Amino acid sequence: MFVKELHCPKCRAVHAADQIIQTCTCGAPLLAVYDSEKIAARIRKEDLTSRPHTLWRYRELLPVRDAANIISLSEGMTPLIPLEKLGRELGLADLRLKDESPQTTGTFKARGASVGVSRARELGVHTLAMPTNGNAGGAWAAYCARAGIRAVLVMSKNAPAMNRMEIGMLGASLFLVDGVITDAGAVVNRAIAEHGWLNAATFKEPWRIEGKKTLGFELAEQFGWDVPDAVLVPCGGGLGIIGIYKGLRELQKIGWIGSRLPRLIAVQSTGCAPMVRAFQEARPDVEFWENAKTCAFGITAPRPVGAFLTLEAIRKTDGYAVAVDDTAILRAQKELAAREGCYICPEGAATVAALPQLRRDGVIGPRDRVVLLNTGTGLKYPETADYTAREVALDASIA
Amino acid sequence: MFVKELHCPKCRAVHAADQIIQTCTCGAPLLAVYDSEKIAARIRKEDLTSRPHTLWRYRELLPVRDAANIISLSEGMTPLIPLEKLGRELGLADLRLKDESPQTTGTFKARGASVGVSRARELGVHTLAMPTNGNAGGAWAAYCARAGIRAVLVMSKNAPAMNRMEIGMLGASLFLVDGVITDAGAVVNRAIAEHGWLNAATFKEPWRIEGKKTLGFELAEQFGWDVPDAVLVPCGGGLGIIGIYKGLRELQKIGWIGSRLPRLIAVQSTGCAPMVRAFQEARPDVEFWENAKTCAFGITAPRPVGAFLTLEAIRKTDGYAVAVDDTAILRAQKELAAREGCYICPEGAATVAALPQLRRDGVIGPRDRVVLLNTGTGLKYPETADYTAREVALDASIA
Repeated sequence: MFVKELHCPKCRAVHAADQIIQTCTCGAPLLAVYDSEKIAARIRKEDLTSRPHTLWRYRELLPVRDAANIISLSEGMTPLIPLEKLGRELGLADLRLKDESPQTTGTFKARGASVGVSRARELGVHTLAMPTNGNAGGAWAAYCARAGIRAVLVMSKNAPAMNRMEIGMLGASLFLVDGVITDAGAVVNRAIAEHGWLNAATFKEPWRIEGKKTLGFELAEQFGWDVPDAVLVPCGGGLGIIGIYKGLRELQKIGWIGSRLPRLIAVQSTGCAPMVRAFQEARPDVEFWENAKTCAFGITAPRPVGAFLTLEAIRKTDGYAVAVDDTAILRAQKELAAREGCYICPEGAATVAALPQLRRDGVIGPRDRVVLLNTGTGLKYPETADYTAREVALDASIA
Repeated sequence: MFVKELHCPKCRAVHAADQIIQTCTCGAPLLAVYDSEKIAARIRKEDLTSRPHTLWRYRELLPVRDAANIISLSEGMTPLIPLEKLGRELGLADLRLKDESPQTTGTFKARGASVGVSRARELGVHTLAMPTNGNAGGAWAAYCARAGIRAVLVMSKNAPAMNRMEIGMLGASLFLVDGVITDAGAVVNRAIAEHGWLNAATFKEPWRIEGKKTLGFELAEQFGWDVPDAVLVPCGGGLGIIGIYKGLRELQKIGWIGSRLPRLIAVQSTGCAPMVRAFQEARPDVEFWENAKTCAFGITAPRPVGAFLTLEAIRKTDGYAVAVDDTAILRAQKELAAREGCYICPEGAATVAALPQLRRDGVIGPRDRVVLLNTGTGLKYPETADYTAREVALDASIA
């Protein structure tokens, strides 16, 4: 393992990596720092071609010491699907969907779960707990089941029923609260304090983000060790953007890509857009978003812990932040399904909905190579579906 | 394209491949025959490593003339996931799940749809129709949406609601009938006769099976151009088994694998087991199964058209056919999820449920390398889920 230490991006403290640890003593999230020189000397990007078609192909850049601890369900290496019809209509020569639908449990949360659970097993964790909007809970439940780690998941009664089913079927301990994810977090915090479990919430342990950063690795590899010009990322907790940024920075440090980075563009719902407000007002952190509510349930995060890191990644890449309303999201979801055959989740559809505005505002130009991150399958959101089916008699004609 | 012609396995008639064609004049399904010598001279299996990680990597063995007609959503090349806990318990040294969950629309139907729709586009089809139990409809709707082909899908009102939603969202024309798939088929047949559409039902056109056979290619490639000892396949229409058999036979003909084939084992539900009955009674074809009913909706096929081919593939590989009841299926689904982290569909779970019996009867030995085919994600079957979730107050303790 090439992790040197854990580093606090707020108070600059340094912590040992080979211990069960949560946040920094100052309360900020911890980030793993790698020995780039050793990694650069050890592997070349050409070596990857003979490796498994999962995110573990980048194992030198991931935090597991003994390969026997890797819990894998074939996560990562998701496709980049060309969206030619939509691109033509918007005057974009190269528009692609980084489609996370074909992941374990149908969402990009498999990345953080595979790496986070593997590292938890390596460090001897027996029980972990977290609050979840649903999809992270499903993914962590799957990997914990495989690892033999008990997963305690707390979610809102209002979270999608599909997630509840998924988590329950995967054998996790599931608790429902009458509140939002912050309320679920409070219940988890008390349980952690009481039982000594690991808190596996976003940014409460340092390894989940190591899985997410493989999105950055894959984008670079899939663009032939170049990078696209812009990546649109649905933004709730903000880990997608922070992960892509961290991954690409690490590739720069080992010399696999050049100095250019894609513009990272956060897409939120107008029902919960604290990141967009902070970006527009050029503030370093977000304020709590009151009465957060959107059909894109996975990006409902009124005040995410690592927002300052998301905002930093956006600014350092000359990025942008934009919000779209639920009507536009649901229309985009339906249109993409019926025209490109990609039935994506509302969170992913938010990036599609944001495109016309980004084109109008000149954030994206006609020759830009643009990637939309779809974070999961539309199948998990039956409650947002709107379609027509006609009942016919057995002897009737259809046309 | 290396397709020489279409061949009728019943009356031995030969038909030209470059035409829109349905079944043979004798009514039997048509099978594509390739020029094995030319293919063997043109490519080596080593050439595959640099190709896309989709089923189109085997393009010389697939029926599309112009690559511009390929409609791809990154289908195929699904993982083989080791099931170590389950294997240990059953005394099986090497047990793996060929997991089709991470396919377009969540099921293995993406294979037939990608190849079938690509070929339909190449031949100029504008509208196609088919009866469906749900998952095939979803996959064909996705690829037709992308291809700009109109898909008319007729399904039972009793089919899973998730499939209805999926098909509707993907922009297909969806008709519901108060009956089973045979009734839906009758409605389709009348519409085909009336409007001149393509009938894309299983075995009613020759190209869907060409997608399914890639399961055989992948198994061989994933076993290092050897084959496993046994493959358990959920069996409704039987196309999974016929496809694997056809694919492996073609690899033999071009010299990529040896003479040994895996035992192909059909798994049905006791609620609809015409293939098992025909196998046990050593009959060449099935009889209609009355009152077919199982929670594994996708394998409800009371009298599949190509059953004689399925039975032939089973016998020629020294295979077997076995039925399990719904209770065992649902228990196996839940156990696999909670222990291996694989939340699979009831059809796939039927193969898990069949294992103890196959071990007891000596069909599978302790050193056999055994593959279970999981045909899709459990997420599409919320109605079969059975789990526990506890509501807790915001100030309550959890343990």
